Amino acid sequence: MTLLVHLGGIDEQEWADAFRAKMPNRKIVTSSDEFDPKEITYLYVWKPRDDVFDGLENLKVILSLGAGVDPILKHPHLPKNVPITRFVDDTLTQCMSDYVIANVTMHHRELTHYRQEQRAHYWTQYYPAPATDIAVGIMGLGQLGADAAEKLVMLGYQVNGWSRSEKQIDGVQSYAGLEQFDRFLADTDILVNLLPLTDDTRDILCRQTFEKLRRDVLPHGPVMINAARGGHQDENDVVECLRDGTLGAASLDVFKTEPLPKDSPLWDLDNCYITPHIAAISSFEGGVNLVAEQLELFERGDALKYIVDPAQGY
Amino acid sequence: MTLLVHLGGIDEQEWADAFRAKMPNRKIVTSSDEFDPKEITYLYVWKPRDDVFDGLENLKVILSLGAGVDPILKHPHLPKNVPITRFVDDTLTQCMSDYVIANVTMHHRELTHYRQEQRAHYWTQYYPAPATDIAVGIMGLGQLGADAAEKLVMLGYQVNGWSRSEKQIDGVQSYAGLEQFDRFLADTDILVNLLPLTDDTRDILCRQTFEKLRRDVLPHGPVMINAARGGHQDENDVVECLRDGTLGAASLDVFKTEPLPKDSPLWDLDNCYITPHIAAISSFEGGVNLVAEQLELFERGDALKYIVDPAQGY
Repeated sequence: MTLLVHLGGIDEQEWADAFRAKMPNRKIVTSSDEFDPKEITYLYVWKPRDDVFDGLENLKVILSLGAGVDPILKHPHLPKNVPITRFVDDTLTQCMSDYVIANVTMHHRELTHYRQEQRAHYWTQYYPAPATDIAVGIMGLGQLGADAAEKLVMLGYQVNGWSRSEKQIDGVQSYAGLEQFDRFLADTDILVNLLPLTDDTRDILCRQTFEKLRRDVLPHGPVMINAARGGHQDENDVVECLRDGTLGAASLDVFKTEPLPKDSPLWDLDNCYITPHIAAISSFEGGVNLVAEQLELFERGDALKYIVDPAQGY
Repeated sequence: MTLLVHLGGIDEQEWADAFRAKMPNRKIVTSSDEFDPKEITYLYVWKPRDDVFDGLENLKVILSLGAGVDPILKHPHLPKNVPITRFVDDTLTQCMSDYVIANVTMHHRELTHYRQEQRAHYWTQYYPAPATDIAVGIMGLGQLGADAAEKLVMLGYQVNGWSRSEKQIDGVQSYAGLEQFDRFLADTDILVNLLPLTDDTRDILCRQTFEKLRRDVLPHGPVMINAARGGHQDENDVVECLRDGTLGAASLDVFKTEPLPKDSPLWDLDNCYITPHIAAISSFEGGVNLVAEQLELFERGDALKYIVDPAQGY
């Protein structure tokens, strides 16, 4: 019953030491240690390399370090019928909502506009509408989307939520499925993407989507905020729509290629706010505690938390 | 029983017409109309000129268009013993909280830092702390301060409130009076000023205050946000403290002289976010309805709302 720590690009030793301190009776190995693949029953994984699953004949649970499991699900050698769990914790949720609230309010309050006025030393009084006049549309109402939606409601915004199936959240107008997507967009001034990346959602943030957003409320046009995955956005469309005014502004934390290539035109667009995939991070402590809890649940024969449905893609 | 509309720099006719539509049986005059000063019983006022009170022997109530009444209280010819009422409405409160939340979250999420990184095409991952690690200190816990404080608590921030007398707000650590001011500052990372401008609070935002703020939480130093009055801030100190790092950043909606003079060094400080006194505005409809309500209350002999205490200055 050995736990293999396989974290592409992250310090595996630091995690392994924390797991050993938390679970002194368990054997923990990292991908750089010598070990017999047959002894590996649990895999704690991030950015899996091609050979990660080689020889793991006795693998019982795959535990993802992150909330998004698309890199695991699309792995060519992913074993069938081994349960996969996602990572969700309160810190990750808090940080994601922090990012969403900061960017929604920044765009609602027209920061780009006032920075341009400030640089020109202009004093032109223009009063942003109250939050009660602005509709924020959240794509994806899982734990992250639901928390952001509840906080936006409390701040006074009109909040629309779009998800695969209808979700009930107090104060949130629910739209479900592709048949209600256009109505959801037509009722939305600020679009926030917190969807999982699946074949259904890839490139969903494109010109066709942006052109359907409500245009007559925010004076500089609708806004798009993507804190989920770069795979959700057609970056050529984003650049063109930010230039031609189809989008008034955007906040992007994720990109098709990360780090964002030096020559991407997104860097120099004044109405595009770039952050280097730092909207939210799983807390180290939260990760260690959740893995310990999951292994206990599994060995007691109880249900694991945050189980991924490969058919749905999250 | 005539209402005089005297609004320096604002369209008096527009307000007078709205009052006439709302109160068809009342006589309404503007400062540019012909009228007998003796007939004026009610004064609706903003930016009063020196002669505003001349001959108003029968004035019974002074109604301020704004929430801040310092321009009225410091008027050299202000009649004694005439009640003065402030303006507060839900739209004003909503807009002020919108401004406060947008600026607190912008600074917490290190927008200045990431914009500089973006301009340089740098991709350096650095994770802002969750809101639960950040302490926001609100100076002034009237209707505006209390609403902003409650919303910040709900977003997860640690919230400190400082006011003349102890105020009880759920989740808000209360500090009262000058003797607790230093402790309030020492426990605060982001300082938000929503105080009324009085002799006690003039220039309270100065180097001595900024140097007492907590310095070890926000990586670029503490932040100051002023949405109350320019008279609260020593602008030379603000400039110097933004330059020498005593303050990591500031958001200023108000200034000693408005419009802010073209040659003010504040315009060109990259860590200073300037807006032209637009944080919050009273709604036209709300103002008309409140005045109508106040006149009815007064004539029924009932207590007026939002009465100003000239001794306290608000």
